[in-house]
Amino acid sequence: MSERDTLKALRNFVKLRDWGEFHSLDNLAKSISIEAAELLEVFQWGPELSREKSIDELADVLTYCYLLADKLQVSPEEIILEKLEKTSAKYPVEKSKGNSTKYDRL
Amino acid sequence: MSERDTLKALRNFVKLRDWGEFHSLDNLAKSISIEAAELLEVFQWGPELSREKSIDELADVLTYCYLLADKLQVSPEEIILEKLEKTSAKYPVEKSKGNSTKYDRL
Amino acid sequence: MSERDTLKALRNFVKLRDWGEFHSLDNLAKSISIEAAELLEVFQWGPELSREKSIDELADVLTYCYLLADKLQVSPEEIILEKLEKTSAKYPVEKSKGNSTKYDRL
Amino acid sequence: MSERDTLKALRNFVKLRDWGEFHSLDNLAKSISIEAAELLEVFQWGPELSREKSIDELADVLTYCYLLADKLQVSPEEIILEKLEKTSAKYPVEKSKGNSTKYDRL
Repeated sequence: MSERDTLKALRNFVKLRDWGEFHSLDNLAKSISIEAAELLEVFQWGPELSREKSIDELADVLTYCYLLADKLQVSPEEIILEKLEKTSAKYPVEKSKGNSTKYDRL
Repeated sequence: MSERDTLKALRNFVKLRDWGEFHSLDNLAKSISIEAAELLEVFQWGPELSREKSIDELADVLTYCYLLADKLQVSPEEIILEKLEKTSAKYPVEKSKGNSTKYDRL
Repeated sequence: MSERDTLKALRNFVKLRDWGEFHSLDNLAKSISIEAAELLEVFQWGPELSREKSIDELADVLTYCYLLADKLQVSPEEIILEKLEKTSAKYPVEKSKGNSTKYDRL
Repeated sequence: MSERDTLKALRNFVKLRDWGEFHSLDNLAKSISIEAAELLEVFQWGPELSREKSIDELADVLTYCYLLADKLQVSPEEIILEKLEKTSAKYPVEKSKGNSTKYDRL
């Protein structure tokens, strides 16, 4: 399946339920934060993995991300790659290798 | 570009910087929440859009989601579609049309 | 200083800047999430403490919590204690001692 | 009730259940983010208030904030007031009156 097909399936799901009216940009942004916290809850008391639960919650975060990308009329994968170029420039390999220091303190 | 290429570019970016050691599952889950909140910050005081900032922050959330998916050895788009099937069953069109009530109170 | 004095100082700060108009309930809820993520960022790549930064970010979360409590016309400490009673009932000592299992799976 | 009494009640609750071992600083920071998102969920699809639910979720955020403050050996109200002084300096009344612009763009 391609990104185009995934977006189409999501759009169709929303349209069938008339949920477009709820999906304002700010409501989608809130939804991404809410689902991200449910994913974080898997790791609330330690790093132990519940694989099935993680995948389930990650899917919810991704779903709202795709819906927001669609609303903003951008391709999820294109914006990942564009940002990756910018981040690569901010974190030159020789300076950032093996350390997690934020770029403004590199 | 396909999903496979996007994941490959991300993996390469991380590998070049030796950042794999920081990308434990729980650290990635935290990172998704942190970036989701930066996206939410665009809408902190109201629904007005800053298009460029939204795309930029959404790209960060998506990036960490893809990295976590890769770590869990699942395809981002496949898990979106699998979850969509489950959600479709939980929210039958006739019951959920035009309302945002949570499935457990439908 | 008492809770009453703290709330008074916060109210005065907001009033002087005419910020009441921004502090709708939903904007305050968003702000709490945003600041909570900045606190989480201190621990993004591991459990190491940056004491000063933690206190600084925790103060921001608490500030928005107090502002929201004030808007909802409740006392922060009273609602903590009322919730503690409910939680104590949900997690009886003998069942929950030394384990972090959620009450619905106890 | 004073802040001291609230902290004492929380400490006692945790001690009785041997939950101190789960309450590392980073786990508490995660917990604050998780509960903040549950509060945000009240407002996920719009600004309408569910008063009872809001208070309930706000109490959870505050509880973890107090536990973290206690762990950091600071008084919640003192750090609110200290931060308020710093914020007051960053947002002079004459510059910030009636606008929500972030200090670094004032």
